Amino acid sequence: MTRFTLGQLAEALNAKLAGDPARVVTGVATLEAASANDISFVTDPRYEAAARVSRAGAFIAPVGTRGLPAPMLECNSPQRALIDLLALFHPPRALTPGVDATAMVATHATVDPSAAIGPLAVVEAGARIGARVRVHALAYVGSGVEIGEDSVLYPLVVVREGVRVGRRVVLHAGAVLGADGFGYVRDGTAHRKIPQVGGVLIEDDVEIGANTTVDRATLGATSVRRGTKIDNLVQVAHNVEIGEDSIVAAQTGIAGSSRIGRDVLLGGQVGVADHVTVGDGAMLAAQSGVAQDVAPGAKLAGTWARSLFQARRIWVAQAEVPDMVARLKKLERRVAELEARLRDGERG
Amino acid sequence: MTRFTLGQLAEALNAKLAGDPARVVTGVATLEAASANDISFVTDPRYEAAARVSRAGAFIAPVGTRGLPAPMLECNSPQRALIDLLALFHPPRALTPGVDATAMVATHATVDPSAAIGPLAVVEAGARIGARVRVHALAYVGSGVEIGEDSVLYPLVVVREGVRVGRRVVLHAGAVLGADGFGYVRDGTAHRKIPQVGGVLIEDDVEIGANTTVDRATLGATSVRRGTKIDNLVQVAHNVEIGEDSIVAAQTGIAGSSRIGRDVLLGGQVGVADHVTVGDGAMLAAQSGVAQDVAPGAKLAGTWARSLFQARRIWVAQAEVPDMVARLKKLERRVAELEARLRDGERG
Amino acid sequence: MTRFTLGQLAEALNAKLAGDPARVVTGVATLEAASANDISFVTDPRYEAAARVSRAGAFIAPVGTRGLPAPMLECNSPQRALIDLLALFHPPRALTPGVDATAMVATHATVDPSAAIGPLAVVEAGARIGARVRVHALAYVGSGVEIGEDSVLYPLVVVREGVRVGRRVVLHAGAVLGADGFGYVRDGTAHRKIPQVGGVLIEDDVEIGANTTVDRATLGATSVRRGTKIDNLVQVAHNVEIGEDSIVAAQTGIAGSSRIGRDVLLGGQVGVADHVTVGDGAMLAAQSGVAQDVAPGAKLAGTWARSLFQARRIWVAQAEVPDMVARLKKLERRVAELEARLRDGERG
Repeated sequence: MTRFTLGQLAEALNAKLAGDPARVVTGVATLEAASANDISFVTDPRYEAAARVSRAGAFIAPVGTRGLPAPMLECNSPQRALIDLLALFHPPRALTPGVDATAMVATHATVDPSAAIGPLAVVEAGARIGARVRVHALAYVGSGVEIGEDSVLYPLVVVREGVRVGRRVVLHAGAVLGADGFGYVRDGTAHRKIPQVGGVLIEDDVEIGANTTVDRATLGATSVRRGTKIDNLVQVAHNVEIGEDSIVAAQTGIAGSSRIGRDVLLGGQVGVADHVTVGDGAMLAAQSGVAQDVAPGAKLAGTWARSLFQARRIWVAQAEVPDMVARLKKLERRVAELEARLRDGERG
Repeated sequence: MTRFTLGQLAEALNAKLAGDPARVVTGVATLEAASANDISFVTDPRYEAAARVSRAGAFIAPVGTRGLPAPMLECNSPQRALIDLLALFHPPRALTPGVDATAMVATHATVDPSAAIGPLAVVEAGARIGARVRVHALAYVGSGVEIGEDSVLYPLVVVREGVRVGRRVVLHAGAVLGADGFGYVRDGTAHRKIPQVGGVLIEDDVEIGANTTVDRATLGATSVRRGTKIDNLVQVAHNVEIGEDSIVAAQTGIAGSSRIGRDVLLGGQVGVADHVTVGDGAMLAAQSGVAQDVAPGAKLAGTWARSLFQARRIWVAQAEVPDMVARLKKLERRVAELEARLRDGERG
Repeated sequence: MTRFTLGQLAEALNAKLAGDPARVVTGVATLEAASANDISFVTDPRYEAAARVSRAGAFIAPVGTRGLPAPMLECNSPQRALIDLLALFHPPRALTPGVDATAMVATHATVDPSAAIGPLAVVEAGARIGARVRVHALAYVGSGVEIGEDSVLYPLVVVREGVRVGRRVVLHAGAVLGADGFGYVRDGTAHRKIPQVGGVLIEDDVEIGANTTVDRATLGATSVRRGTKIDNLVQVAHNVEIGEDSIVAAQTGIAGSSRIGRDVLLGGQVGVADHVTVGDGAMLAAQSGVAQDVAPGAKLAGTWARSLFQARRIWVAQAEVPDMVARLKKLERRVAELEARLRDGERG
């Protein structure tokens, strides 16, 4: 069992300890679930009330917090301290370097000696697997693929031929990189496939969710830039480019050749049509759909998307539309009567 | 070929036979597709007309049905009788117990002797596979995973480390249980990953569709309670809880920490935002989106969702909005004219 | 490196060459990315300006194009010529026929000698794999499955028992064919599963995207007809039928028993409710949702979908609704005042 004294934690987290440095904690837990052996966390002042009734044996909390029922580690950023705390208690499992006896690594593939290839994984000819990479069981690495150092391929990931993956990239189970883009030309009634001969480029520090698909480009490359995080079941079509440090929530789809800027936030189930540019720092609310370019920094919602502010106003006002139909009709009658009366008055 | 006499079926289904008990049927088919060797089914009186022109050799039908062109098995619940009938003609294939010679079962895993592990499946150290479980080909069971008795993992299912799966659970091909939740903290421009060290708990009698993803919790567990059925390509985010006996249709997404009650019905492509509570017995129509709590028993539609009744009224009334814009402008002109005339009249 | 002279290309593409037939090109690239060794393409006159500043060493272009800065191959259909050009420079990789030593092919399966079965693929008993079929690594072919000649199963495809796949079909990585349909009958509070004992029929020349799911029928077959192309992450429920030469974009879902006609276009993230018929040649815009039958040739948008024309008019007019609420209220006051004044006038 992992054990730390509060003194050790204060040092590791660079936090100020209020309480006994010799006290021991053996786990991290939420305020509600924590027992006396756990350290818990107050990442925001609004959780202080919950903290006061928590049975946790210690807390990390923002500088200046008072009144907690157990020792406290005061942190400048409790959220970041929590990340470090979780990493201390749950260190990533050390994988034994080397190729599992049941993995199928082609003779012309290059696997760094510090990398680990799991049972029944397949690495095709010409692939290059970098230092400390972990390719888990039943994952597939196509011919000519490059995987940068410290990246992780979870079980049943598919990286098709020629795809390039950077360093510290995480590909979750079932993700498919490099399937053919969806491109056809009509030929009479039939659809003739346009060969999809481009690639996929995943830069450093990208994370790609379970069962997400990133298609290869027709020509050139579909690109996901450094630091961008993509959730589960997302579709990234051929020739899309997603800029640095963007966030793409689950089940969102980005159609062919669209360009998403850096630091963009796409909520869940968002749809971006093809050949659309979404500017840097833009934010699309969940379930919104855009078919036209989005200005940098814009905050949009709805299909077809409008400013979040306007979308909300419309949503509220819509509730009155059914009554407005009747009221308008009635008002038209009343005005007609007034007009008739005035006409009669003038005539009379 | 499977063969039953109508007498045998009447007994097995606890139904009253009107017709020759020695007559033999060899299959089950729809009213349209059935031939004289098939038994077909009338699960609802509105299908009686179709039944009258069916060529089926026999029918199951509600008590009191008359006028069918072939022998009939009268059932109190023809829908439930149909389930039994299908099970009689299509018994689940008996899998030979034991571990396939090509499966990779870690030495420290426990597999019940009555369980079956298919070709090239992987079971990691510390996993426990219960009685009569079927792990199909190329499925992955991570370290420390527990699979309860009589559960089925179809080919290429991924159950990552530490996930707990109950009894009689069905996991369809490509489903991923226990991928990391999607949680980051902003650190300047970069997104720092919050380690996702919690688990996933799937209770008894749950069914999870093909390529559906259920993420592990940050801390604690993402939970799907007893009897709930989840369709294909659904996203269940970290720390979500779905209550008992709920139904989640395809491509629906439930964001982090939301709580879905028991006996809830989520239609297809529904989106539930994070930290939302959906009350017991609520029903969200297909493609609806909710960002706020939903009362028990509520029936909602649209994004952002409103009562189904109101959503329908608004939808109908919206068709008049384009004309209303013009009519309102016209009416404003007419009222202004009336006002002017009255002013003139008073002045004059 | 692949090399062609322009003379060779003119002959292969049946194009008229304006320029030196001995000139050599070694690749195909977009107008922006092309270097002097590449041939590029003008598939539409609106790209001519970009072509004039391209550094490409040659172009394919529509008949009659003038003013390009390098030799030109005039084509009647540059789009179709581009397909041929890409195929010339990127011929499909020849796979060595035969069963990889690590693949698991059941003794009672039939594999044509010209077919290729990749490493760690699984082919169950009774499956029949046609001529020149390529089953890539880690793919799963269930018992009794038929795969027609020249079809391709990319890595980690799942084709469950009894599914029938035609000729020249392409199944992308992670696609799941033949998972159980989502059908239950309520039995008190519990949901009893209706055994899903039907099949899946994929006709010739169909393409199915990565991580797409096509469920097996309850009885009968879920069918995708000849020439239809389905993108990634699409859900096709039990007993659906999709007609010939239709296009289904990514993340669309089609619920149980619905019938999609031929030559239909479903945009991305579309939802079709169960038991709906979508007529031939209909077009549903991205993110639209239909719960009622769609007439042949209709063009719809929105949820619930209306004609694209009406949906656009409503969308524009909605922007005025919040103001209309206020304007209508104001107008009601003004009319009431007029009425009061007239009443006073009459009384006076």
